[in-house]
Amino acid sequence: MSVTVPRGFRAAGVAAGLKSSGAADVALVLNDGPDATVAAVFTANRVKAAPVLWSQQVVRGGVVRAVVLNSGGANACTGAPGFQDTHATAEHTAASLTSSVPRLIVGAGEVAVCSTGLIGERLPMDKLLPGVRAAVRELSRGGGPAAAEAIMTTDTTSKMTVVAGSGWTVGGMAKGAGMLAPAMATMLCVLTTDAVAGSELLDEALREACRVTFDRVDSDGCMSTNDTVLLLASGASGIEPTLAELTAAVTAACHDLAQQLVADAEGATKEIAIDVVGAASEDDAVEVGRSVARNNLVKTALFGKDPNWGRILAAVGTTSAAFEPDTIDVAVNGVWVCRSGAAAEDRSKVDLSGRAVTIRIDLNAGSSAATIWTNDLSHAYVHENSAYST
Amino acid sequence: MSVTVPRGFRAAGVAAGLKSSGAADVALVLNDGPDATVAAVFTANRVKAAPVLWSQQVVRGGVVRAVVLNSGGANACTGAPGFQDTHATAEHTAASLTSSVPRLIVGAGEVAVCSTGLIGERLPMDKLLPGVRAAVRELSRGGGPAAAEAIMTTDTTSKMTVVAGSGWTVGGMAKGAGMLAPAMATMLCVLTTDAVAGSELLDEALREACRVTFDRVDSDGCMSTNDTVLLLASGASGIEPTLAELTAAVTAACHDLAQQLVADAEGATKEIAIDVVGAASEDDAVEVGRSVARNNLVKTALFGKDPNWGRILAAVGTTSAAFEPDTIDVAVNGVWVCRSGAAAEDRSKVDLSGRAVTIRIDLNAGSSAATIWTNDLSHAYVHENSAYST
Repeated sequence: MSVTVPRGFRAAGVAAGLKSSGAADVALVLNDGPDATVAAVFTANRVKAAPVLWSQQVVRGGVVRAVVLNSGGANACTGAPGFQDTHATAEHTAASLTSSVPRLIVGAGEVAVCSTGLIGERLPMDKLLPGVRAAVRELSRGGGPAAAEAIMTTDTTSKMTVVAGSGWTVGGMAKGAGMLAPAMATMLCVLTTDAVAGSELLDEALREACRVTFDRVDSDGCMSTNDTVLLLASGASGIEPTLAELTAAVTAACHDLAQQLVADAEGATKEIAIDVVGAASEDDAVEVGRSVARNNLVKTALFGKDPNWGRILAAVGTTSAAFEPDTIDVAVNGVWVCRSGAAAEDRSKVDLSGRAVTIRIDLNAGSSAATIWTNDLSHAYVHENSAYST
Repeated sequence: MSVTVPRGFRAAGVAAGLKSSGAADVALVLNDGPDATVAAVFTANRVKAAPVLWSQQVVRGGVVRAVVLNSGGANACTGAPGFQDTHATAEHTAASLTSSVPRLIVGAGEVAVCSTGLIGERLPMDKLLPGVRAAVRELSRGGGPAAAEAIMTTDTTSKMTVVAGSGWTVGGMAKGAGMLAPAMATMLCVLTTDAVAGSELLDEALREACRVTFDRVDSDGCMSTNDTVLLLASGASGIEPTLAELTAAVTAACHDLAQQLVADAEGATKEIAIDVVGAASEDDAVEVGRSVARNNLVKTALFGKDPNWGRILAAVGTTSAAFEPDTIDVAVNGVWVCRSGAAAEDRSKVDLSGRAVTIRIDLNAGSSAATIWTNDLSHAYVHENSAYST
């Protein structure tokens, strides 16, 4: 599983003492090549963590040999000293790899850095740098699962995926269990492939994949400062897929990881798919789905197993999407509780006892559709997020 | 207190059996004149309840003699039959007033209707219409407080205000304890004045008042289908204030009622003022304040008495306001925990033990400012809203 299934990659996850629990908190992914092409998508938040600012520059260079990731601290809102810490982490990773791995010369400008954890605090560099050295020593072809575990924060399980192409594969790992929002989550994701693909092809495939997967997960409407999705290609398979083939595989990998994120969202008791159909445009469908996904009254109602379609209509009514209030239909888990904007089938027929909930909204305004994935708003969400930093 | 302090108004509140608790649920406000000018602001939600659609037409006519309000049912998403129910309520109110009040002839087109309660269910007209007749019988110069009580839903106290002008006054009542959101709340508000003022003057004063008060309350980011603010003028004082005088008094009344709404928001443990200063424009300040007010991670942190300024910055970062991430300052209850986008004073100095919280965000990008009022996100909010309709 995970990032080390594709040929040409090694990984490691170690405990450096950044987490007070003593759990693993530093991960490293190394691309042994022959290629080292890369694409990335970063948070749209204008307040970007130091590792995001750093990695944006690195990716612009077009070559990424290694990714070093830490949990236990986001290194966000830490000013110039925080950026220097990220720079030092990349330098240290590059130097350790160059001195430890035969025939490998890595520059700091080829090392992407990702961090996750509390915002506003400096990283303990005296722990992080020894952790990087330990991770370099631990690198192995079977290290994917250990790396996936080391990037967890409030996640209860590690998230990994593998998607097979024709003679090449895509592997991936992700973390994120809250602050999942438009244009992503506090989520870190590293995808690897042994396909032969230039950075431009990778970029096109990754953007389309994120657009219809991670960008449509909206767990709690909150957008993080650290979101990063990286796609590294080693070319070790010697096979060059088409854009369509690559996009399909990367999208499948992202979809699988996105579903794992929603399933493990902080304190959630429901995984909710909001299918908007009959929209005049895909943008309209996304806007409507997101508005419902972010509505606290809808989310608390679903936590209470209440198919409160009136709150769904009230959320739809705040959008600019094309629709008429008296022609909307809404189904909750297959029961059309609202037809033409008014009560229809008996709401008591709706079974909300399970974790999976599907809300289907037919705007009857066109033929476009989109699905947004979200969670309910529970007592446990309030508890976890009111106690997180204290 | 309330709507009957200004001369020329009578009111009543009675129990008609719409609420299963047996509490008062029908209110009536009568303008005895000599004038019957009116202005109104309605929800911006595109899914509008039947009484909103009705009252919009009535207000357009320029004369409102009476307002009939009910709790115990929103009459929203009820289709054409729901609109007929509203029409019938206005007709019945007009006929009862005409037959009961000497020298008064009222048409249905001069009766505004407001409803609040559950969305998606028809009103029990067999209870509502007798309630209207009872309210007509109970009309009195001291009926303001009874009317204010009859419009409560999950409110724990009735909301009333009086603001004195020079020889004229403004009185008001409001309800609303959740679903408070941009462009208002599930809130109903009736303001009365004995000033002499044409509908255009009233309209100008009311719009400006709402813009800086109710429109800046954002308790839970959810916008209702029923929001209505009405301003009725009787002219009984014989005094004609200037626009500035009228605007000041109406704004003061709305501000007072808005603060009462925030103080009584469902399940809230904090009343939070988000003061955004140093903005390039007032719109920027409002956008930033609203983004922070709607951020569930900020709201849960404050419930947990945690001055988590990193989450505040992450919320600011999602806006399009003019600012630089490394020049923002944030104070929580007077302690500047963030300066220039990074940690400053020790967060442990922040006292969050009380109900009142002030977050001050200095964007250092200009000289405009705005305040948004909101609440925290508590266990009780989740409880009330997951159990409301079941």
